[in-house]
Amino acid sequence: MKAILFIIDGLGDRPNSNGNTPLKEADIPTLDRMAKESICGIMNAIDIGIRPGSDTAHLALLGYDPYKNYTGRGPFEAAGVGIEVRPGDIAFRCNFATLDEDLKIVDRRAGRIKNTEELERAIDGIEIDGVKIIFKQSGGYRAALVLRGEELSDKVSEGDPHKEGVEIPEIKPLEDSQEAKKTANVLNKLLKIVYDRLNNHPVNNERRKKGLPPANTILIRGAGKVPIIEPFYERYKLKGACIAGTGLIKGISKMVGLDFINVEGATGTPNTNYMGKAKAIVEGIKKYDFIMVNVKGADEASHDGDYNTKVRVIENVDKMMEYILDNINREEVYIVVTGDHSSPIEVKDHSADPIPIMIWGKGVRPDEVDKFDEFSTYKGGLCWIRGKYIMPILLDLLNRSKKYGA
Amino acid sequence: MKAILFIIDGLGDRPNSNGNTPLKEADIPTLDRMAKESICGIMNAIDIGIRPGSDTAHLALLGYDPYKNYTGRGPFEAAGVGIEVRPGDIAFRCNFATLDEDLKIVDRRAGRIKNTEELERAIDGIEIDGVKIIFKQSGGYRAALVLRGEELSDKVSEGDPHKEGVEIPEIKPLEDSQEAKKTANVLNKLLKIVYDRLNNHPVNNERRKKGLPPANTILIRGAGKVPIIEPFYERYKLKGACIAGTGLIKGISKMVGLDFINVEGATGTPNTNYMGKAKAIVEGIKKYDFIMVNVKGADEASHDGDYNTKVRVIENVDKMMEYILDNINREEVYIVVTGDHSSPIEVKDHSADPIPIMIWGKGVRPDEVDKFDEFSTYKGGLCWIRGKYIMPILLDLLNRSKKYGA
Repeated sequence: MKAILFIIDGLGDRPNSNGNTPLKEADIPTLDRMAKESICGIMNAIDIGIRPGSDTAHLALLGYDPYKNYTGRGPFEAAGVGIEVRPGDIAFRCNFATLDEDLKIVDRRAGRIKNTEELERAIDGIEIDGVKIIFKQSGGYRAALVLRGEELSDKVSEGDPHKEGVEIPEIKPLEDSQEAKKTANVLNKLLKIVYDRLNNHPVNNERRKKGLPPANTILIRGAGKVPIIEPFYERYKLKGACIAGTGLIKGISKMVGLDFINVEGATGTPNTNYMGKAKAIVEGIKKYDFIMVNVKGADEASHDGDYNTKVRVIENVDKMMEYILDNINREEVYIVVTGDHSSPIEVKDHSADPIPIMIWGKGVRPDEVDKFDEFSTYKGGLCWIRGKYIMPILLDLLNRSKKYGA
Repeated sequence: MKAILFIIDGLGDRPNSNGNTPLKEADIPTLDRMAKESICGIMNAIDIGIRPGSDTAHLALLGYDPYKNYTGRGPFEAAGVGIEVRPGDIAFRCNFATLDEDLKIVDRRAGRIKNTEELERAIDGIEIDGVKIIFKQSGGYRAALVLRGEELSDKVSEGDPHKEGVEIPEIKPLEDSQEAKKTANVLNKLLKIVYDRLNNHPVNNERRKKGLPPANTILIRGAGKVPIIEPFYERYKLKGACIAGTGLIKGISKMVGLDFINVEGATGTPNTNYMGKAKAIVEGIKKYDFIMVNVKGADEASHDGDYNTKVRVIENVDKMMEYILDNINREEVYIVVTGDHSSPIEVKDHSADPIPIMIWGKGVRPDEVDKFDEFSTYKGGLCWIRGKYIMPILLDLLNRSKKYGA
């Protein structure tokens, strides 16, 4: 027996003035049929009233307590862009940005510069006071930075004022420790070196000629010490993989030790390659015991306040699900369909409202719910659960859980 | 966006021989209409099977873990009668009582003496071994006592045998510490001084002449060290106030740092000034982000086993709610209606039965519940929740909760 954990990012919503939500209004015959055959409920990934990020929520859904395993966005972002992070590394998110001649920030995204591979090479590999700098861009103005060495700390302030027209603030230790002082010192030195190397870098001289802002500095934020996380296989004895279009989810899957299945055209946007993902799931579940899938588009649409696009993303997921059900061995696969958090269109951000969930597959106890939406699933047999219970329920259905007692 | 937490004290009940409860039988068209528009459920303030006091339950509903913040009734009672308690103070509840010539207790309430201001003045301000005695009556035979000084403890036995015909027991340290010994010693000395000052006090001589029992001692109980409680505003960044008729709830609101809105004629009994409170709520929510309201009468009626009065209190609450809904901006206020605990008429005391709850306001997901009672609300979208989740859910609806993660 195998399992697919299908996460529709930002799935849940609040009723609009007509009492509708994108999920309620979407035409989803396959998901509704599954609901009829499933045990349904509502879920909070972390806890009731907790408004999670996608990162902390996905950790929770995989059974990892985010309060123990989440050390900030940096490590997950760094793993997501492909840096082989190690426990103890200090990781950050970065933007390439533009400084004017007075060293004031004039563009926090360096004109949304597209190609930063050459600039990456000017930074990656620098050593400062015995600390190795690992730097990787992620296909544009975004990048990740890792410090590797002895006596480092993530207790340092941000090198990002989150606004333009000011200088980059000096990075300061946030605690009175040798490690924090050293880390702040290394980062401040790094910023000087980066400016020296980038300001007159051929890429930037070329940009100036074209009237584009140079990417002559980096803004550093999201500090986190790379945690020690028990690998997924060791914890569950399941060979697992992840299918996702966004770096952050890829980073989470790498951090917990899930293989990553690359899908051509999986973008993490509403225009992702839905059917490519569906095919990858069908192929993947032949090889793996467990696949976590993230479809990001619904959340993206929510952040944009775009109701109709959220409906369309959900309807595309329904078509994915039709394909999956038509092409898997239904006798040997469980499918959990849920979200990581609600993202109400009106809020344009994550909320703590619970998310519909259903568990489909052989032997689950179907309830009376026959519609997969926010107004039906709460009446189902799962009642209102937390994300941390999904993996134990699945392990039990897969007949892989250990009996406690005799 | 703002929120009203409306607590009908002792709301829940158990079915009588006709299968009815006061809430089920009450004619409450406004509350029922709200239920239709709300997300409903049942709730235990602290946990399933826990029979709470009003004090511990209200703390829990405000998001304060009573196991960490509740140190006994004394501190909350003392704050409620208007003593400006400080962390570290040792606080007690007291009764004025009557000793006969053999120093035996003959009336634990001193004939329910009404005016004790003069007797208060005979006790308040005494100093014993460097410990300051703060003493305040609360409009009758009840009073609060606070010890302020160094090296004090709440680990002392009660100076109240809870029966008549016996002497006041010597107060003893309950642990082998200097602090407990000193505190017991101070209290025993205080009892002697109190008797000396009160026994022939003009007020008591006057009472004897009228054939009334003198209030010539105090019975001390409910010891508690005043805790350090994180102020409500610091915790939630909400400007909050409380409307209540009883000293204990007032004490809780003072301890957590809610402003107290005084309402003429709010008595904490079934004959309180309902519409005065409703008007104070409507006015208050213009100034404050959050108002906690307590209507005590339903619990009072339950303690008296008075079914019909409980029905009447609930119907009066319904009229309050009609007024409130007619006079607030419905687009900007959330209303939570619930109780602090059940108080079944037959039990004449608090019980652990869960209490109906509904959350009303913009964007909540209505469920199919259309009647606010013990037999309908459990089918709602909130399922069975704990009191500690109310504030996180409200903060999320108010768009004030911090995102955990990215």
